[in-house]
Amino acid sequence: MTRQANLPPTPVSSRLIEALRDRLGDRLSTAAAVREQHGRDESYHAPHAPDAVAFARSTEEVRKIVEICAAHGAPVIPFGTGTSLEGHVAALRGGVCIDLSQMNGVLTVNEGDLDVTVEAGVTRKQLNEHLRHSGLFFPIDPGADASLGGMAATRASGTNAVRYGTMRENVLGLTVVLADGRVIRTGGRARKSAAGYDLTRLFVGSEGTLGVITELTLRLYGVPEAISAAVASFPTVEDAVNTVILTIQSGVPVARIELLDEIQMEAVNRYSKLDYPVQPTLFFEFHGTARGVVEQAETVKGLAAEFGVGDFRWATRPEDRSRLWQARHDAYYAALALRPGAKGWATDVCVPISRLAECISETKADIRRSNLLAPIVGHVGDGNFHLVFVVDPDDLREMAEAKRLNDRMVMRALALGGTCTGEHGIGYGKIDFLTAEHGDAVGVMRLLKMALDPDNRMNPGKVVRL
Amino acid sequence: MTRQANLPPTPVSSRLIEALRDRLGDRLSTAAAVREQHGRDESYHAPHAPDAVAFARSTEEVRKIVEICAAHGAPVIPFGTGTSLEGHVAALRGGVCIDLSQMNGVLTVNEGDLDVTVEAGVTRKQLNEHLRHSGLFFPIDPGADASLGGMAATRASGTNAVRYGTMRENVLGLTVVLADGRVIRTGGRARKSAAGYDLTRLFVGSEGTLGVITELTLRLYGVPEAISAAVASFPTVEDAVNTVILTIQSGVPVARIELLDEIQMEAVNRYSKLDYPVQPTLFFEFHGTARGVVEQAETVKGLAAEFGVGDFRWATRPEDRSRLWQARHDAYYAALALRPGAKGWATDVCVPISRLAECISETKADIRRSNLLAPIVGHVGDGNFHLVFVVDPDDLREMAEAKRLNDRMVMRALALGGTCTGEHGIGYGKIDFLTAEHGDAVGVMRLLKMALDPDNRMNPGKVVRL
Repeated sequence: MTRQANLPPTPVSSRLIEALRDRLGDRLSTAAAVREQHGRDESYHAPHAPDAVAFARSTEEVRKIVEICAAHGAPVIPFGTGTSLEGHVAALRGGVCIDLSQMNGVLTVNEGDLDVTVEAGVTRKQLNEHLRHSGLFFPIDPGADASLGGMAATRASGTNAVRYGTMRENVLGLTVVLADGRVIRTGGRARKSAAGYDLTRLFVGSEGTLGVITELTLRLYGVPEAISAAVASFPTVEDAVNTVILTIQSGVPVARIELLDEIQMEAVNRYSKLDYPVQPTLFFEFHGTARGVVEQAETVKGLAAEFGVGDFRWATRPEDRSRLWQARHDAYYAALALRPGAKGWATDVCVPISRLAECISETKADIRRSNLLAPIVGHVGDGNFHLVFVVDPDDLREMAEAKRLNDRMVMRALALGGTCTGEHGIGYGKIDFLTAEHGDAVGVMRLLKMALDPDNRMNPGKVVRL
Repeated sequence: MTRQANLPPTPVSSRLIEALRDRLGDRLSTAAAVREQHGRDESYHAPHAPDAVAFARSTEEVRKIVEICAAHGAPVIPFGTGTSLEGHVAALRGGVCIDLSQMNGVLTVNEGDLDVTVEAGVTRKQLNEHLRHSGLFFPIDPGADASLGGMAATRASGTNAVRYGTMRENVLGLTVVLADGRVIRTGGRARKSAAGYDLTRLFVGSEGTLGVITELTLRLYGVPEAISAAVASFPTVEDAVNTVILTIQSGVPVARIELLDEIQMEAVNRYSKLDYPVQPTLFFEFHGTARGVVEQAETVKGLAAEFGVGDFRWATRPEDRSRLWQARHDAYYAALALRPGAKGWATDVCVPISRLAECISETKADIRRSNLLAPIVGHVGDGNFHLVFVVDPDDLREMAEAKRLNDRMVMRALALGGTCTGEHGIGYGKIDFLTAEHGDAVGVMRLLKMALDPDNRMNPGKVVRL
């Protein structure tokens, strides 16, 4: 099942291209390489190149581009770093990709209020680099160094979500360009508000289908006084997950609690030159005061001991912690390196934590029976875990088997009261699962889409089908 | 300016009443006293009685009532406990009030997952009473013992929001009956999800204008191992607020941090027979481990000392804490008791915390110049504070002056980057301020309203005007 880039004859008018070029000059590209790169994300889904790529430098420019596209009836697809995982940026119906990477200014840091306003193209690492000497940080960390606009659009989360929440909880307000070129601001800087419909949360997770996010106001956090990290190996995945469940139920404010199964641990050891036991493993991080961190760690160590853990391996020096978490963030690439030349098919689900052990165990049993290579990593404090099928995309049997296992895992998660995706989003890869999960509520989503984008031009074919 | 209950000649058809009575029997009331009671909240806004009140007992019954109203073109106004503060339940265009108080079942407590599913009529105190022996609690505590459905509909918060968030953060999913009688479920029990538009957050804060909330799944929290509370008196409001700002910036996970100004303290002392100094005062509560609570309290005490506080008065015994927080919760009634026979006009705003001292000081200067009696209390950890004008509603001059000061306070909050209401909502009392705050974004709210309620029958005249 080779999926090739789909480059149909350009359906948009040459007058549209001219109008955009008049405005943007050489920041409007129709070069095949640029178009191809902008129609592809990091997933296994078939890429679809847009007809043109517009590199915007301001909200006003995005507004103008969207207006021109509206006048010509052309689709608009926002693009941050192209690191999404469900085909979010594929130009399924052609049109104009708006690349926001040149909108990378950090506009205002309000240290006293713990908030920051940025342009949408700023990446999470750029932001934290900017904040380096402020004593503040932004905690949301999906695997990739994604743009903050893209992270809001996909409701991203990451390893810190168990403590600090996801983009849902950490966006205070957005500037959004709507399908007709109107520009709105969805919220101010107040920590809470009961004023009207929650437009911020409507656009967070809307994947570019309701408008283009051009600016964001985000919550920041003080860098904790003390941080410590630890690694613990468990006899079984169930033991690891049960430790997580007890930790969460005990109210320990753990900052990170990540599961890697034995297959992923082997991959990580090889890729990052580490020597952890090849067993189901939890990576922990504790944030707080010096005393608080010790107390948290002691509590968790006591819980883990009940499930067969003898030793915690500590990483208290910053460089050791960095090495540990870099290994965790490289898990995807480590998995791919297990089978040179193979590609990754990443998928995720999220379930109530009491059902997590069951969901992971049954999924691992499926994998064992299938002979597919598919390591598991998880933000297990949230009940969220990921599977990466390490596959040869040209092997139809393998791809069909991965699809079958993915279908089974998602339906299992839904049956357990969970969701078809904890943090990757719907794109066009999980659009059918959305209906399986939400039933008639998808009809309401469709009404919202039609209200805000009646011509279905904003990233069409994603989230909901019209 | 006496505002009388407005009981227009019933515009709804007798056939509608018959159809509802066929379905509900004596749970459909058209008695004047029942109608009047259901058209009035706790605010100064003019009440408007509905034409009939339907007491529903199930989602299916709500669905049927809404369907019958749709067939007859009648407005539908959901009613919980009637404790809202901006005229939310007033039947501005007549119609049928759906009283949900008989839907008061706690359906499922998932102790392992820290969540609960309840019918919309369960009040916050009923829920916590139900949870009493579980080791869990639900933290959101608006002043009144409101229904959880009403609290979701108004995006309520309260004294614990600085630590535990508001209804925005604590609703996992809702069952909602839409204007055409369709029933949807907006979310499952997973802690996070990237699956589709965030319908849960769309309905939280929609004040019954998009549908009727009939069931809610809510997050719960473990009762902390240790709790301690303290009271500290400050030389000035600025000193108190600056202590709050430093506390938040220091990352102390304080559970409650409440400001009462000197006027409110006098009221509280009299009403609750206490003897606190009549000075600007902060009430604190700390949640955590035994050691953690001590550490938090020590940190805050150190900060307060910089602003002229000599002594913390501790309340560590549960009964002392209850007495302290009961006094805080009774602040509104204590304010009214300062002037027997007077009524309360409660209003609130929320600003970025760095602007809080400025916003409160200028507001207090306005009050002093006006000679109105208007104590201030605030959930100041969020930047949110309340004013209660204690007024004679028949004195036109007083009411006009209260209106003028309220207008000035709201516009001041907006100018400081804040919101026109932190937790009371829009109702019909703040509908013009919504436009002042959100500008063109109100047009988007209007589009959403028209998409979900094209005939404008769901609590018409609230949040947005069509």
